[in-house]
Amino acid sequence: MDKKEYIKRQISRTNKKDYENYVITRIIHGVDDLNVKFITQQYVKRPNGRALADLYFPQMNYFIEIDEGHHLTQMEADKARDADFEDATGVKPKRIDVASKSIEEINQQIDEVITEIKSLITEKKQEERWVDWDLEAEMSPDTWIKKKKIHVNDKVAFRKIVDGCKCMGLNYAGYQRAGANHPFEENTLIWFPKLYPNGVWENEFDESKGLIIERNIESVEKRHAHIRSCLNDNRQRRIVFARVKGMLGDVQYRFRGVFELDKEKTNNEIGLVWTRVSKETRTYDYM
Amino acid sequence: MDKKEYIKRQISRTNKKDYENYVITRIIHGVDDLNVKFITQQYVKRPNGRALADLYFPQMNYFIEIDEGHHLTQMEADKARDADFEDATGVKPKRIDVASKSIEEINQQIDEVITEIKSLITEKKQEERWVDWDLEAEMSPDTWIKKKKIHVNDKVAFRKIVDGCKCMGLNYAGYQRAGANHPFEENTLIWFPKLYPNGVWENEFDESKGLIIERNIESVEKRHAHIRSCLNDNRQRRIVFARVKGMLGDVQYRFRGVFELDKEKTNNEIGLVWTRVSKETRTYDYM
Repeated sequence: MDKKEYIKRQISRTNKKDYENYVITRIIHGVDDLNVKFITQQYVKRPNGRALADLYFPQMNYFIEIDEGHHLTQMEADKARDADFEDATGVKPKRIDVASKSIEEINQQIDEVITEIKSLITEKKQEERWVDWDLEAEMSPDTWIKKKKIHVNDKVAFRKIVDGCKCMGLNYAGYQRAGANHPFEENTLIWFPKLYPNGVWENEFDESKGLIIERNIESVEKRHAHIRSCLNDNRQRRIVFARVKGMLGDVQYRFRGVFELDKEKTNNEIGLVWTRVSKETRTYDYM
Repeated sequence: MDKKEYIKRQISRTNKKDYENYVITRIIHGVDDLNVKFITQQYVKRPNGRALADLYFPQMNYFIEIDEGHHLTQMEADKARDADFEDATGVKPKRIDVASKSIEEINQQIDEVITEIKSLITEKKQEERWVDWDLEAEMSPDTWIKKKKIHVNDKVAFRKIVDGCKCMGLNYAGYQRAGANHPFEENTLIWFPKLYPNGVWENEFDESKGLIIERNIESVEKRHAHIRSCLNDNRQRRIVFARVKGMLGDVQYRFRGVFELDKEKTNNEIGLVWTRVSKETRTYDYM
């Protein structure tokens, strides 16, 4: 996928029936910079489930919400939402009111947002903290090998399992279904699990607590056998690239951190419990 | 409906699955002028049926076509289409190729179109031929009363029958289901017909020939009775505002010209035949 396809798909996800498409396209065309990445309908975690931000610029950590309806109860709900938003992202979303405003006022709000975005970009460039949007590089293991480490906050996601292996210094050979033995770190598996219920596995992942639960529900015997075999395996440290659906519905493997088996919490009822010991891990060049 | 609602609805008709929405919104936001009217999916007559232009600026008579697919056969078809287009509108459409071009090249093509549109506007303003887009005025009878006449080419369409009556000098009173007697012109009916098959009427309208055919198909007796009664009626001159569906699915009454009963062509088989005698008629102030 190239930027042309990416942009089309992102814009195609905006709702046409209301003003969302109008506002978002005015912002994108107004910013008018193919080095600036944007994401429409970005998931944001909330205490009770999650919310979608209408537009998100990851390079500037800038979120935009389009307010279609506005009465007082709505404004209260928005305040609660903004607070949750700030907890999750560190920033308040910028709100654009389209419900009670004229087209001239809507345009004015949007143009202020565009000015703000442009000055954030300029600021980052002056401070030399700006990196151009590079769709290919983002998903290339070489980018992360060069950086010498990956962090959960980098939101690294690879298209293929082999790319995750590569940045751990392993070139294809040696990959197995469950993952691959780390070539340089002892007792460590490079792991590509599905961290959600799938088939006979009732797996869970809690990002805020940094916990993975792995539970076989095929039968009591199989669950116990699986737990026993892991407790007897020396690879109780895992570098986790979880299989997720990408923004555009494609399969990706997203770095979730380094986990270790929590023998205290693990038991035959709950299943295996893995605890995150680091949000960061170093990368290695492959041969 | 105000411009805010109009713009939203026009943009909402663009196809989201391809590049149409991207291109059209970039043009609209780039031109960035609420005094410039645009129409998406404008019908254009062709010898074999009709075509939709992706974007149309009526003030400049400027059409834009977005080319999604491009092989040689397509290009041949486009040439034929451009020729038909020119016959119908007097101009060739501007084509934007999105199929074989990169996003940078697409943006460049669009930006050239925006520059061209802006210079057309400037030109018209310098020649004092520019009229700002005024959504309310367009549909107000007062606008046409002030102009002292309406012409088919003005594409006048009113929201209500009473508005058509008003600009003929008649304020509401005197309106009947079939139309209203013209208060100042003899033997003339202000007529608001459905010029398409509806219920027991198989009506037709041919714009290029300037012909209306009115035919009752309920029974031979009723058809003959209707023809007889019209031949005996002295109001054989008609100012026609045809009931049509507006761009946005709303009912409108569009001025089609002045027609007279063609007694030569009218017969019991065909029905009543009305021939256009003028594309223009004068307007009158109402009390």
